[in-house]
Amino acid sequence: MTVADASLPIETDALIIGAGPVGLFQVFELGLLGISAQVVDVLPHVGGQCMALYPDKPIYDIPGLPRCTGRELTQRLQTQAKPFSPTFHLSHQVTSVARLSDQRLQVQTNHSQTFMTRSLIIAAGVGAFLPRSLSLQGLSELEGRQVFHHADQRPATVAQHRVVVGGDDDAVGTAIQLAQQATGLDAGRVTLLHRRLALDASPDLQAQLQSLQAAGKIDFKLGQVTGLGMHGQHLQSLDIATPEGLSHSLPCDALWVLLGLSPQLGPIAQWGLAMSRKQLNVDTERFATSEPGIFAVGDINTYPGKRKLILSGFHEATLAAYAIAAYLRPGEKIPFEYTTASPRLHQRLGV
Amino acid sequence: MTVADASLPIETDALIIGAGPVGLFQVFELGLLGISAQVVDVLPHVGGQCMALYPDKPIYDIPGLPRCTGRELTQRLQTQAKPFSPTFHLSHQVTSVARLSDQRLQVQTNHSQTFMTRSLIIAAGVGAFLPRSLSLQGLSELEGRQVFHHADQRPATVAQHRVVVGGDDDAVGTAIQLAQQATGLDAGRVTLLHRRLALDASPDLQAQLQSLQAAGKIDFKLGQVTGLGMHGQHLQSLDIATPEGLSHSLPCDALWVLLGLSPQLGPIAQWGLAMSRKQLNVDTERFATSEPGIFAVGDINTYPGKRKLILSGFHEATLAAYAIAAYLRPGEKIPFEYTTASPRLHQRLGV
Repeated sequence: MTVADASLPIETDALIIGAGPVGLFQVFELGLLGISAQVVDVLPHVGGQCMALYPDKPIYDIPGLPRCTGRELTQRLQTQAKPFSPTFHLSHQVTSVARLSDQRLQVQTNHSQTFMTRSLIIAAGVGAFLPRSLSLQGLSELEGRQVFHHADQRPATVAQHRVVVGGDDDAVGTAIQLAQQATGLDAGRVTLLHRRLALDASPDLQAQLQSLQAAGKIDFKLGQVTGLGMHGQHLQSLDIATPEGLSHSLPCDALWVLLGLSPQLGPIAQWGLAMSRKQLNVDTERFATSEPGIFAVGDINTYPGKRKLILSGFHEATLAAYAIAAYLRPGEKIPFEYTTASPRLHQRLGV
Repeated sequence: MTVADASLPIETDALIIGAGPVGLFQVFELGLLGISAQVVDVLPHVGGQCMALYPDKPIYDIPGLPRCTGRELTQRLQTQAKPFSPTFHLSHQVTSVARLSDQRLQVQTNHSQTFMTRSLIIAAGVGAFLPRSLSLQGLSELEGRQVFHHADQRPATVAQHRVVVGGDDDAVGTAIQLAQQATGLDAGRVTLLHRRLALDASPDLQAQLQSLQAAGKIDFKLGQVTGLGMHGQHLQSLDIATPEGLSHSLPCDALWVLLGLSPQLGPIAQWGLAMSRKQLNVDTERFATSEPGIFAVGDINTYPGKRKLILSGFHEATLAAYAIAAYLRPGEKIPFEYTTASPRLHQRLGV
């Protein structure tokens, strides 16, 4: 007998792609209609773009919240969705969607999680926030072995020449961490490579960087990577172009590319849904895509007059919830009730 | 030289009918686009239905506000609109709208206020909240003289037989006040007439009522008014039908009809706008009515999929604001900016 290494398939009525503000509010609106949801997000946390790009910047145009940071909005929406106990599958990217013979959708993630869902709601914002990489031939073959995109990834074997590319908190913090963790095994140099002198890191991190530079533990170099110097399957150096127009070779056997996140529509573009430019076409009554059972809400959809605003996504998620309920319960009348007055909604909310 | 008794006409770019949540957020969204607004409401306070019908009941489905009373939501939206200093004209009902030769709209209220506005936004909810009356022939001719619809209205001359119809806080409170204020001039009886034994008034008011009954200052009677006993132009009694099916005559020379508020579409139905049942037809891109320059947002409009939800009104007000800006500034590109990042919006918000 063999044990399958993939997780067991999860059966659900509703699967939401995207745990940003609109995805979280979609959980709430579906919950009010008695539909519980599974939520997948490629990021390791909920809150989407709001948390990834501007957790501490105030937003001023959420109705009733005159001033609210991305972090606060996320927390408030989590609290609001809590009565409906959504299951979150974080750090999962949806890779494929296929129609089963019983009309359900089979959805797979890059971590071998399979869902069989009766409805799919794409609330993926401007796409999956994936690490921005360098476009260099041969780089992708080295990923996970000698090339990394997360601060906490480490090579399996000793690295003598460690290079971090980038200039933000993440990049500078990683260079500092690597330099401080240098032991007998990882005693080699750490180089921080950035395309310009000005860093986007906090003053505190920049001060730490300077003292490690002074102590000879970090080299800070200006330049961009233009090629990989390989020895067989093994990376051993980087070709660097400096701002002055010179080029040289930098020894490197472990490379962290930490250039921030970039939204990528990714596999969604391959599912055969009707699109306009990079958005999914929907109607303004149901927010349904061209495929039965697949809905799209928030920044990823488009319709005449569309504005990419969080509050429009909230409205869309609400109307979509009614359309999803009607799709899941054909022939049944979906009651329209107010949360101020309905005992049924109070029961579902636990108030 | 004579002095005009009507107020001077007010010229504005935008006039909003309705100071409920959606009207308040309309002020905010127009303000972000550099458009300042005048606001008219028939109620003596802002907040519309939320404040008139459920100021202390929690609402659970405003995104980011897991639990929020109508009063709190109103306060939050007022705070949010504050940077744009709207002018409120409360206790005004709009009576007529006419097109001027320069395409502006001339709007009149029942208190002789005239507006000349370039755009009109109807955010009037389920209509104007007007006092519910009794449908009795001849009643309207007595209004303001012997028949009143507000607790603080009083007859000009001595009333010997004062009757209050109703059973809520407003009605019971008024009966108590009249009984307590009884002087030499108004020494007559006060009768509280209600159609059933159970009152909708607070326990405190009911206790006060009972002690005034015991002191012989208030009569509490069961019944409904079926006709008016007139002496020429003068009301002198009411025909009453009791729950037991009896009828009798009750002396009355001053009548307060305090049966709560009832939303009435009122004059809006006469402006020639395309309607479906009691709603104004709008598109989902601009939320424009059939008349150029007149927009409708919130519960008063309809379109395929429409749900009468506050949050849908917020979305509608936002898209309408862009459409209004485009209408007011033809040929100009209306920039789309985010409040998190735009210096122009920060300046307008005063942050």
